[in-house]
Formats: sequence, structure tokens, C-alpha cells
Amino acid sequence: MAERRFAEGDFEARVRTSFARQRAMETIGARLTVVTPGVVEIEMPYAQRFTQQHGFLHAGVISMALDSACGYAAYSLMPADAGVLTIEFKVNLLAPGRGERFLFRGTVTKPGRTIIVADGQAYAYDGEGEAKLIATMTGTMMSVVGRRDIEG
Amino acid sequence: MAERRFAEGDFEARVRTSFARQRAMETIGARLTVVTPGVVEIEMPYAQRFTQQHGFLHAGVISMALDSACGYAAYSLMPADAGVLTIEFKVNLLAPGRGERFLFRGTVTKPGRTIIVADGQAYAYDGEGEAKLIATMTGTMMSVVGRRDIEG
Amino acid sequence: MAERRFAEGDFEARVRTSFARQRAMETIGARLTVVTPGVVEIEMPYAQRFTQQHGFLHAGVISMALDSACGYAAYSLMPADAGVLTIEFKVNLLAPGRGERFLFRGTVTKPGRTIIVADGQAYAYDGEGEAKLIATMTGTMMSVVGRRDIEG
Amino acid sequence: MAERRFAEGDFEARVRTSFARQRAMETIGARLTVVTPGVVEIEMPYAQRFTQQHGFLHAGVISMALDSACGYAAYSLMPADAGVLTIEFKVNLLAPGRGERFLFRGTVTKPGRTIIVADGQAYAYDGEGEAKLIATMTGTMMSVVGRRDIEG
Repeated sequence: MAERRFAEGDFEARVRTSFARQRAMETIGARLTVVTPGVVEIEMPYAQRFTQQHGFLHAGVISMALDSACGYAAYSLMPADAGVLTIEFKVNLLAPGRGERFLFRGTVTKPGRTIIVADGQAYAYDGEGEAKLIATMTGTMMSVVGRRDIEG
Repeated sequence: MAERRFAEGDFEARVRTSFARQRAMETIGARLTVVTPGVVEIEMPYAQRFTQQHGFLHAGVISMALDSACGYAAYSLMPADAGVLTIEFKVNLLAPGRGERFLFRGTVTKPGRTIIVADGQAYAYDGEGEAKLIATMTGTMMSVVGRRDIEG
Repeated sequence: MAERRFAEGDFEARVRTSFARQRAMETIGARLTVVTPGVVEIEMPYAQRFTQQHGFLHAGVISMALDSACGYAAYSLMPADAGVLTIEFKVNLLAPGRGERFLFRGTVTKPGRTIIVADGQAYAYDGEGEAKLIATMTGTMMSVVGRRDIEG
Repeated sequence: MAERRFAEGDFEARVRTSFARQRAMETIGARLTVVTPGVVEIEMPYAQRFTQQHGFLHAGVISMALDSACGYAAYSLMPADAGVLTIEFKVNLLAPGRGERFLFRGTVTKPGRTIIVADGQAYAYDGEGEAKLIATMTGTMMSVVGRRDIEG
């Protein structure tokens, strides 16, 4: 696992283009707010249509946004011809998904040539703008080259 | 962790009532198809609005349905006055989320009084009805009693 | 991730040779008892020198044996010139590591060309030979070819 | 999950007493070096008898020390009459366990009354004292009160 520490010049454009193709992000109302080499942030408002039985944001929606944040943090460090696939992730739910809006940050912990490990945090913001850590993720991403169905 | 092996009489009604309150399940088009003590199945059709950048079902949507399946498998074995919370889960994505419809099964592996561990499988079905295992989950659920905001 | 379903002819010899090089297995008193394509079993006796503070087998020792079982289950399906590396694993501790001896089984869930996912179970046996499931693992293994320091 | 932010006065003595009862720590040559509220560090030298087939420290040994570091980080914030149990953990192996000595740090991410989540890092040190991050853990620990077999 040789390390790749530097993002290629157009990394932000590639991340934004790929994110725009994630229909699921549009559907949950998520926006890409920060794209730097190895760190990506996504924000979304609370939405009743994505709640679980107690009225909190569903753990799966939190996972969806964290997976995209971690995946694009990894993708930002990949070569221009690579696609990104999530191999696996683990999510710990630390507090209920209660708040007005949510921020999801993905950060690359280990940049490898094939395997990239990223860690994520999810925060809930209340009406006063106070943030609370509600979930963490560790995800393993794979850089895939030369597969027509895995581009971007 | 004393074990609780038997479901209380009305477990199916309790599971179905709680599931119906998960707005996220309705939003992704998921239906509850099987509810037996310790085993729950959920099905949903492929939907473009929940895809990632390659057109596959987003890993987060797969996680959402698996989390609900595992959570309700756990809930089916809880006492009538308990609510269920997901503490954490891990998902392995084994194959792309490509198919016409998807089935998610959650099964209790370890029924404890406070902590319940459940394992899940996600299958994709193509036009001929052939099933392919696309993801697995291991989730840790908690039985919560006496909290007004965690009922069902 | 093209699938590799068949073990190469000498898989058992390769697994046994590699296992014999794991000094940690000898140190904890573990023996390789079953080696079939995609399934490997390891057994070990209870040993006080590997206990945690309550006198149970330490979760790390359970993980060690499960990791080896899952890793060799994966390795049994790899080509003869490959080495195996563990990328990550998750362990759920379901019951205390209390017993006279322990059995650890690793089974390949998803055989890929580069990435192989395996699931493991750990059982404790008491004096009457009754088995109890005490832990489960899901592990992600990687097939590595052409690296001098990763052979076998 | 009401939060418990403060360690009780004798937390360090309780952690050190419990650690001293972990025979597995003595067996792998691990020492407790740092005990502060919510953060615990453990160190151990490289030992050939705990290697895997390529001569690296076995992932299970890394997990063992990380589990103890995370578990005692959690335990340091528990009330004096509680015992600590690991419910589950996930480990990502980022680089081979190659080095002269190793440091394992566990830090509480979410202190709950019953459930405590801790994150860990493992570092390898070479002959020049250069550190390399070789593994990370996320673990879920449980505070157990009133069970005779789970004290400390």
C-alpha cells in the first residue's frame, strides 16, 4: 500500500462532478460544502421524510451522508482515472439524530494506492447553532481503475 | 446479559406499528414482508432517486433498510414496554446495488436483556428473479425502557 | 471483483505451511483442525495467561484466533503466488470467554479477486462438551501478489 | 444515555489494579504508561512469539492492546462500583506491525451512563523513535453494575 499524499490538480472538480451524479444526495437535500485534499464536508437539513420511528433522522440517512463524505475524501486523493467504491464501513450512533441541520465530515486517515481508510463525524445543529457529535464512521474505500461501470 | 428467547404475544403488531412510523421506510418505498420472532424482512424496488454516482443503489440506502430489518428483528424479542435504539453497525458491500428489487433480512444472533446483536443480509433480484448477496450487516441494538422519547 | 470460487490443488498445504509460521498461534496454543476450500477451523484450550481482569479469555485472543481462521479461509481460495493481509475486522463479543476449550471457524462469504470477505464464529466448550457461541467476526482480507515481504 | 464527564477520585488506582489483573497484558509484555480521565496508553515491545506469518506483530495482539486501552479509557470514567465489558470493536490495520516497540492509545469519544464509545490508535516505533500509525479501533464498552463475575 504505497501512499498517495497529494491530490491531483482538478480534484475538486472531479469530486463535485461525481457528487452531482449521486441522485441520493439530491434526494436527501445534501450539499457539498467543503472539498479539500483528503477532507470533504456535506450538509443537510432535518427532513421528516427521512426519520425513524421516534422522529430522529434515520441512522441509514446519517450513514448515507457519512459514506459520501468519507468516499469523496478518499476520491479527492485518487488519480484522475480512478473510480471509488466503498468496501465496508462501521457507524457508531452516539446521540439521537435530532436537530435543525446536520454536518458530515469525512477525513482520510490512511491514503493507500488501492485501499484508502477514512474516518467521519456527524454533527447535529440546534436552533442556536450549537453542534453535537451524533455519529462517527470508519470506512474502507477502494480505488478502481479500468472498469467501465465504475467511473468517478 | 440474560437471554430473552421468546417474543411477547403481540410482537408482530408492535413491529408493524413502529415500522409504519418510520417515515424513511415509506420514502424509500420499503415494505415489511416478514415478521417472525427474531427475523424480519423488508423489500424495496430499485429507485433512481436513491443511487450513487455509478447508478447503483447507494450504500446508505442499503444500510438504512438493513438497519431497520436488524432493529426490528431485535425489537420483536423485546418486552412490550421497550423501545429499540441502534448503538452501532458495520456493513460490508459485497457487490454493486444493481437489480430490479432488493430484499433485506435481519436475524437476531444474540438476544440479550439490554444488548441484542443482529446480523443482516441484503439481496438484489434481477429481472429473472435471481438473487445475489450484495451486502451484510452486523448491528448492536439496545433495549430502552422508561424513556418518553424512545417508545417503540 | 471477479469471483474466485475454486481452491487451487495444494491449498491445504499452503494454509498449513503459513499457519505454522504464525508464531502467535503456537504461543496461544492454537491448532489448525479443519482446512477446506473457504472454511478453516482453529482450536485452543483455555489458558490463564491470556485472560482479562475477570478471568475470561481476553477479547484480543479471541480476535487473534478468529482473524487467523478468517484469514486462512480467504487464503485457501487465493492463487498460489498470493499472500494474505487483513485490512480490517469487527468482532462482537456475545458472551464471556469462559470454557475449557475454544473453537474458531472462518468462512468465506464473498470471494473476490482482490478483496475477500470472511465471517467467523467463536465457540466455548464446557466440561460436558456443550458449545456456546461467544463471538462473531466479519473481516475483510486482501490478496497481495508480487510483494516480497507478503508471501503466504 | 446521560453523560458522565468526570472521573471519580481514585480512577487511576482502579484502572491500574484492574490492568494488573489482566494476565494477557503481562503475557504480551504490555505496560500501562498513561492513565488520565478518558485517555489510557499502553506500550509493548516487539516480540517474535506474537507474530503472524510475515514476521509482523499479529493483528490480534494489536487488537488485544487496543481493546485494553479503549476499555480502560472507558473504565476511567465509570463509577467506582462498575465493571467494564467490551461489547464489540472494529480494527483497521493501516500498516504492517513492524517496529521495535508499540504504543496503543484509547480515548473516550462518547461517555454514556451504560454505553461508552472509545477510539484507539496504535503506533509502531522504529529504532530512531519515529512513530507510524499502524491501526485504529472503534470500540463499544458497557458499564456493568451488580454482577459478581464482572468486577473491575
